[in-house]
Amino acid sequence: MSVDAVYHRGPLFKEVFGECWENLRWLFQTENAVLTLAGSGTAGLEAACASFIQPQEKAIVIRGGKFGERWFKICQSLGIRAIPLDVPWGQAAQPAQLDALLQLHPDTRAVLWQASETSTGVVHPTQELVQVVRARGDILTLVDGITAVGVYDLPQDALDIDVLVCGSQKALMLPPGLAFVSASERAWRAGERGGCPRYYFSLQREREQQTAKLQQTAFTPAISLIFGLRESLRMLREEGLAPLFARHDQLARAARAGGQAMGLSLFAQKPSHATTALSLPANVDGNALGKRLREGYGVTLGGGQDQLKGKIVRIGHVGYFGPFDIITAISALEMGLCDLGYSVTLGQGVGAAQAVLRS
Amino acid sequence: MSVDAVYHRGPLFKEVFGECWENLRWLFQTENAVLTLAGSGTAGLEAACASFIQPQEKAIVIRGGKFGERWFKICQSLGIRAIPLDVPWGQAAQPAQLDALLQLHPDTRAVLWQASETSTGVVHPTQELVQVVRARGDILTLVDGITAVGVYDLPQDALDIDVLVCGSQKALMLPPGLAFVSASERAWRAGERGGCPRYYFSLQREREQQTAKLQQTAFTPAISLIFGLRESLRMLREEGLAPLFARHDQLARAARAGGQAMGLSLFAQKPSHATTALSLPANVDGNALGKRLREGYGVTLGGGQDQLKGKIVRIGHVGYFGPFDIITAISALEMGLCDLGYSVTLGQGVGAAQAVLRS
Repeated sequence: MSVDAVYHRGPLFKEVFGECWENLRWLFQTENAVLTLAGSGTAGLEAACASFIQPQEKAIVIRGGKFGERWFKICQSLGIRAIPLDVPWGQAAQPAQLDALLQLHPDTRAVLWQASETSTGVVHPTQELVQVVRARGDILTLVDGITAVGVYDLPQDALDIDVLVCGSQKALMLPPGLAFVSASERAWRAGERGGCPRYYFSLQREREQQTAKLQQTAFTPAISLIFGLRESLRMLREEGLAPLFARHDQLARAARAGGQAMGLSLFAQKPSHATTALSLPANVDGNALGKRLREGYGVTLGGGQDQLKGKIVRIGHVGYFGPFDIITAISALEMGLCDLGYSVTLGQGVGAAQAVLRS
Repeated sequence: MSVDAVYHRGPLFKEVFGECWENLRWLFQTENAVLTLAGSGTAGLEAACASFIQPQEKAIVIRGGKFGERWFKICQSLGIRAIPLDVPWGQAAQPAQLDALLQLHPDTRAVLWQASETSTGVVHPTQELVQVVRARGDILTLVDGITAVGVYDLPQDALDIDVLVCGSQKALMLPPGLAFVSASERAWRAGERGGCPRYYFSLQREREQQTAKLQQTAFTPAISLIFGLRESLRMLREEGLAPLFARHDQLARAARAGGQAMGLSLFAQKPSHATTALSLPANVDGNALGKRLREGYGVTLGGGQDQLKGKIVRIGHVGYFGPFDIITAISALEMGLCDLGYSVTLGQGVGAAQAVLRS
């Protein structure tokens, strides 16, 4: 990312972007064009809604965490009639509930959810949810894969996911600032009806520019991040999809084992491979714990957001993580909990994590 | 920008972002909050429209180049009734024409223009245009300052500009990927009417988060670019506003003198300090010239866009540029023109640029 800022309409940039374009399709396991936007992951979520759903149309949004709420609010902001499928935070969506709601709203045009809901550490059953939607007819599935693409085996084409969104700062190991959206032919056809008022977020405009031939973005791209993207995609290709998924699986299992061995319980009913959310004992203040870890040990763990503020701690293991990052996180957590007066046998959680990692 | 990616809700990020926040206000010469978005400059242009203008409201857009056209299309996309004030490419807008159009459309709610239209190298008379608008009542002025902020003395508060937009990749010397928008109290009041449907581009939401107290963005920020921003703002503060403007003025005069001395004419009636557009002789193909400069000398100059494709060459001098960058550009241009059979006395353009630069 420290290369000179090259002219983004010149041949060198096109070469770099073209390589990213091919490798993103490999990562998403799709024949679609995977479009790149300059913006946060949220920009990708909004572009997906605005480009493929019309105002006044009904969209069911699975709402089981902060990011489910975000997608719900995006739909509302755009004038889409968002129908919530509320799932208690920490639980996974149930396909049967979605089916019942679809029966109640047969005019639903799209269903939206997080493959992995980062705020609660829960994985929703994407494959089963898609199947429920497909059985109900020509309804779009929009999946937030920000902490799932490159973490789980989530083959877009094989699973028949219409729109899959990702960001640069998770499995792709880059700083934030890029969003990616890949859309099926079904989505493009739905988009022909017009979508929502938009300019920057028109994926139709981006598709025209980001073809194999033109290899450029509609607006000035975040050049340094795209140079970084080329490199991180090369790293991922070198690792290979199966080992990539296996690595995330192993790190997640180690984090869970470590947390449970120190007496904490998993917050998520179906825990994600991207982040491990652990419920804190009632007498431990999560905010004080976060401060202690940061100031005492230089370790930053995620806290709870919104209604979970102070109640959970989240260990991240998506992207540029290896075994000793998990050891570090678990060991810091043990020490921090001790410092706050919670009774922990030092090394017990670490030992449990090691047992998973040594295989 | 190569520092570790810190947690964007933690104290270190807030400290960095807080310093940027103060220094952006210094650069914009304003007491407003200058809000930072992850996105291209175009994202800033759209956020400004969507947050302060309502669908169906009338907005006059000065359209004298590619970026004037872009803002016009953004308004149209959002359902704003965009009224063009067409200015021939290469010429500057005339305040009297704007006044006449405002008289014809007394229900205009906003007037939009580029302080510097990068595609033609023209400077529009921002101060006079604002005065015309002010005399006509409570109408917003939205100014695209992407190649003007940090280039010209464009004090937002003193000139009474309601909304001023900038990007990271020009005077701020960073890679693209950040947009900045600063809005007056008049604009925020207008925004209370509701604006256009939006989520990511809600400046109201960003203002709530990007206060002096919270110092965070509503969505995941482009962290590495914001670390770079802290550094580039420090560099600009060290240089000082007056020397910064004087440097751009001198480099621009040198580029113009160099181009004219080799027999080319200025394309812009009122040339910008950000880029110098030179008309090419009819027998010189701008596309072939660009290719020759890039492949023969490793020098990339801007070409013409859209209707100007192949007809002009643009020498950039906004941001991280010094005297010898201009010498390089002028000398490469002389050699490239010679190679394409255009009669140039080598060194004549360079000499003219030197005469401006040696003072």
